Amino acid sequence: MLGMAKQLLQLQAAATHRRNGAGRRQLLAPVLPRHAPAARAGRFAACFLACLLALAAGAVLTLCVTVHRPEPDAVSDASPRGSGYAVVINTWKRYGLLKKAVQHYSGCAGVDAVHVVWSEPREPPEALRRRVLNCTQAAVEVRFVMNRGDDSLNNRFRPIQGLRTDAIFSVDDDLIVPCSTLRFAFGVWQSAPSAMVGFVPRMHWPTDPRGNTKEYRYGSWWSVWRTGTYSMVLSKASFLHKRYLDLYTNHMLPSIRDYVTENRNCEDIAMSFLVANVTGAPPIWVQGRIFEIGSAGISSLKGHDLRRSRCLNAFVSMYGHMPLVATTVKAVDSRTSWFW
Amino acid sequence: MLGMAKQLLQLQAAATHRRNGAGRRQLLAPVLPRHAPAARAGRFAACFLACLLALAAGAVLTLCVTVHRPEPDAVSDASPRGSGYAVVINTWKRYGLLKKAVQHYSGCAGVDAVHVVWSEPREPPEALRRRVLNCTQAAVEVRFVMNRGDDSLNNRFRPIQGLRTDAIFSVDDDLIVPCSTLRFAFGVWQSAPSAMVGFVPRMHWPTDPRGNTKEYRYGSWWSVWRTGTYSMVLSKASFLHKRYLDLYTNHMLPSIRDYVTENRNCEDIAMSFLVANVTGAPPIWVQGRIFEIGSAGISSLKGHDLRRSRCLNAFVSMYGHMPLVATTVKAVDSRTSWFW
Repeated sequence: MLGMAKQLLQLQAAATHRRNGAGRRQLLAPVLPRHAPAARAGRFAACFLACLLALAAGAVLTLCVTVHRPEPDAVSDASPRGSGYAVVINTWKRYGLLKKAVQHYSGCAGVDAVHVVWSEPREPPEALRRRVLNCTQAAVEVRFVMNRGDDSLNNRFRPIQGLRTDAIFSVDDDLIVPCSTLRFAFGVWQSAPSAMVGFVPRMHWPTDPRGNTKEYRYGSWWSVWRTGTYSMVLSKASFLHKRYLDLYTNHMLPSIRDYVTENRNCEDIAMSFLVANVTGAPPIWVQGRIFEIGSAGISSLKGHDLRRSRCLNAFVSMYGHMPLVATTVKAVDSRTSWFW
Repeated sequence: MLGMAKQLLQLQAAATHRRNGAGRRQLLAPVLPRHAPAARAGRFAACFLACLLALAAGAVLTLCVTVHRPEPDAVSDASPRGSGYAVVINTWKRYGLLKKAVQHYSGCAGVDAVHVVWSEPREPPEALRRRVLNCTQAAVEVRFVMNRGDDSLNNRFRPIQGLRTDAIFSVDDDLIVPCSTLRFAFGVWQSAPSAMVGFVPRMHWPTDPRGNTKEYRYGSWWSVWRTGTYSMVLSKASFLHKRYLDLYTNHMLPSIRDYVTENRNCEDIAMSFLVANVTGAPPIWVQGRIFEIGSAGISSLKGHDLRRSRCLNAFVSMYGHMPLVATTVKAVDSRTSWFW
């Protein structure tokens, strides 16, 4: 970006130089009107051209550094160990979305299995089962994980029998992460298997940074955007190690799970607390576009941030301290960076 | 970048719109020459202004997103566990550089101790000891780690008695990494403590990607720059877990250590192989400027890449496979990113 600005400035300077040059030539050439039409048209064209050239140069540079960038796996015959990850989809009475999500994730390279966390009071209708199972794009196992008679949000973190991979990608049924983006994030997780690695960063802000009270407010996307700082990545689109499912369900304070069940909210904050408390380290935010295919979720409801802030403070009280760690690290794909 | 291009295009479009507007006004206003000087001057000014505005907008945006970005620790009272890291400086008969390096690193927040790996045949002169110990900026412990009678490059990875931190920052005596950059990279390492986390990425390229021979050539910085792909970060400026010192010295194939000693090269490639073999994952490249304060090292010598390629292939032969994993992940400070 600075390079482009520099190019623009250089081209501006060149245009200025040309203008000055034309000015000097006026002393030698027959006297012309100070703003001769032809010269002005030339200047305008030069300026316009300068802008276009800068844009073109940028575009060409992008092409140079992206077109010739092969996939890492194509240039290296070494494949990371622990081949693949399981996708765990949390769903609730949105059968159309569920089908789309299963169809999408089952077609992504690296996916070992797709597990649908089912918390509705009734079993999934046979028609739905068939639709979901028939929509898979590859020979990927798709399973319903049953939690009948229990619709707690804690279900999404119940240990899953028969998981063959250490990594799980936890995702909501209305979120589509492109396969290439997912693959990249999985690569990040492989280097940092104890961290939560995801696409939706959030922050805990002290309500009074200079005061002695340890109260916090929930920082939504805009506060992260403004400050570049975060301390959580939400489990609605993030990789995490399967051992955290066991820790969440069997070893975390029961009062936290109770709070989640009663308030029907904040299971993701609870998981962020758990991982931060175990590792003493922040999560990792991965740059990448993700797509919401459903209607707006609870995060768009009025009072959402207030409820989330209450969760933060309740959990801090239960832990006895604030385990979340703030960071400004963002994992980006260096093939898409212009300059480094 | 694309945002800036878009802004420029929008401003160009606005200028065009203004031009068209002026054209329409011609129908209403008294007939003027088709390229009236005033209109042309206006167009030129509009175009020039458009370029300047785009630059200014970018600059303002940068200020907005950087000036108001506090340090994460300033906004969160939670500090990561495992407070700090040890700096391990590899040195060889460059006393001036060593003093500068110790002076710099001992002043960085988070540094628990500075260990100088000493492999010269004689003990460090008393005058040097005094100079080095007196140059520290804070109450940071500085120690010489003695390897008398053994100048092998493997010394830089010998386990260090009394290390109080899990993390070590391995660095050459002629490299200065700014404290803020170091702090950021340490944060990355805290999220990925099994990975090597550093500033100098390199790649192993198959000599014949479509062939069956498993031969590799060493990819220097320019190949990483061109492709965005790497599989090693060199230990001349990288964080790694102290357990790798024990693995390197006491558990790695002795033939690899012998190779390093005999060829006086490639201890960093050997460490990259070791970590990749243990983790099955790639290292993490951290974006950041580092400064060489000495004369050019061996990497500038003729035939350097050829020697490094020989190391790669020798180690592959000893391991029986290529453990290095390619990646395109780059950790950047989101406070310095313009758009995300």
